[in-house]
Amino acid sequence: MYMAKVIGSIVSTQKDSALIGRKLMIVQPVDINKENVRCEEVAVDTVGAGIGEYVLIARGAGARIADSGDTPGKRSVSDCSIIGIIDRFDS
Amino acid sequence: MYMAKVIGSIVSTQKDSALIGRKLMIVQPVDINKENVRCEEVAVDTVGAGIGEYVLIARGAGARIADSGDTPGKRSVSDCSIIGIIDRFDS
Amino acid sequence: MYMAKVIGSIVSTQKDSALIGRKLMIVQPVDINKENVRCEEVAVDTVGAGIGEYVLIARGAGARIADSGDTPGKRSVSDCSIIGIIDRFDS
Amino acid sequence: MYMAKVIGSIVSTQKDSALIGRKLMIVQPVDINKENVRCEEVAVDTVGAGIGEYVLIARGAGARIADSGDTPGKRSVSDCSIIGIIDRFDS
Amino acid sequence: MYMAKVIGSIVSTQKDSALIGRKLMIVQPVDINKENVRCEEVAVDTVGAGIGEYVLIARGAGARIADSGDTPGKRSVSDCSIIGIIDRFDS
Repeated sequence: MYMAKVIGSIVSTQKDSALIGRKLMIVQPVDINKENVRCEEVAVDTVGAGIGEYVLIARGAGARIADSGDTPGKRSVSDCSIIGIIDRFDS
Repeated sequence: MYMAKVIGSIVSTQKDSALIGRKLMIVQPVDINKENVRCEEVAVDTVGAGIGEYVLIARGAGARIADSGDTPGKRSVSDCSIIGIIDRFDS
Repeated sequence: MYMAKVIGSIVSTQKDSALIGRKLMIVQPVDINKENVRCEEVAVDTVGAGIGEYVLIARGAGARIADSGDTPGKRSVSDCSIIGIIDRFDS
Repeated sequence: MYMAKVIGSIVSTQKDSALIGRKLMIVQPVDINKENVRCEEVAVDTVGAGIGEYVLIARGAGARIADSGDTPGKRSVSDCSIIGIIDRFDS
Repeated sequence: MYMAKVIGSIVSTQKDSALIGRKLMIVQPVDINKENVRCEEVAVDTVGAGIGEYVLIARGAGARIADSGDTPGKRSVSDCSIIGIIDRFDS
């Protein structure tokens, strides 16, 4: 998992049916000092995050399971999901 | 998931049977400013994207599930699929 | 798997239900000389590691299985878990 | 998936039983201009590719499914497989 | 899969139960000229490799399946396993 800042969203009309109704957010990975690292990713929002918030991102099957929510096996094509809103980093 | 531009396609005669009839597109990952990032990838097109369009790419199992479409468990060897056409980035 | 140092933790109130009660640690990947490599990741702690300790990190399904512990199939959204505390590197 | 050139092979006597009888090829990832990108990988050849040919590579579960061929669930430890011979790039 | 040289091992007392009895080796990825590339990884040894030997490494589910050996579904948290000892590179 990694830390990221929500910086935008994507509008897509023609898409896989599993994405219908999903919020597709553009997230910028950040380090512990909130500096940008790597390139932006696109993540399905599963927790109601807003632009400017710092979030926790899961990839791969973790992202898919988060996207399926409480319905195990529900079809998902997500490989990147917002799974938490970060209140605070402690170090 | 990440944003990319469709820049070409691949012709392959001798291939895994799961790729027969699939459109194999060359995609260039881009950032939020539509600048190129990283190297090209090859993605199975599941949404009818054309050269020059900006698209959303899923990797890993998400790519395979998108490639299998509405037939859960349908054999797929894709690790990278076009799962949406991007109309607009908002930030 | 890779070697990392535990350098902090994350507080998140609004999150996927599978993360409730989990300790989310910030880990800094290190090389064999304990020098920092790459950017920090966030890992679920499954072994009781403390700040400053060197740990072994698993990614992907390995991370999810470690997070599920002795309950196979227990829902987990982790893609990165601390699976061991490193006593010593030998080379 | 990515494009690569087959540049060599590996001989291994002591190995996982799932690799017995498999051709292990060294592949060099290339971009659309056939320039080298990243480092070499080792891929199981599932299509009869020869040294010097340009090929399509799948990673992860896609690679494993290609390696299992028409026997779903056949044990495979491959995370990287040659799944097609590239005749031509169009852009 | 990638080529690596075994350069050390890790001692860990407090760890996931799936790692008990496993040899955890530190491996340095190498290219075709045996030059170091990227950072070290930690891999479960499934073939009896020794320090200084060149080996073949599988990641992800391939690594987990290799670690489970002939017991399909045996619990494993490995995302990186040594699956072969390299006798010779041919190019």
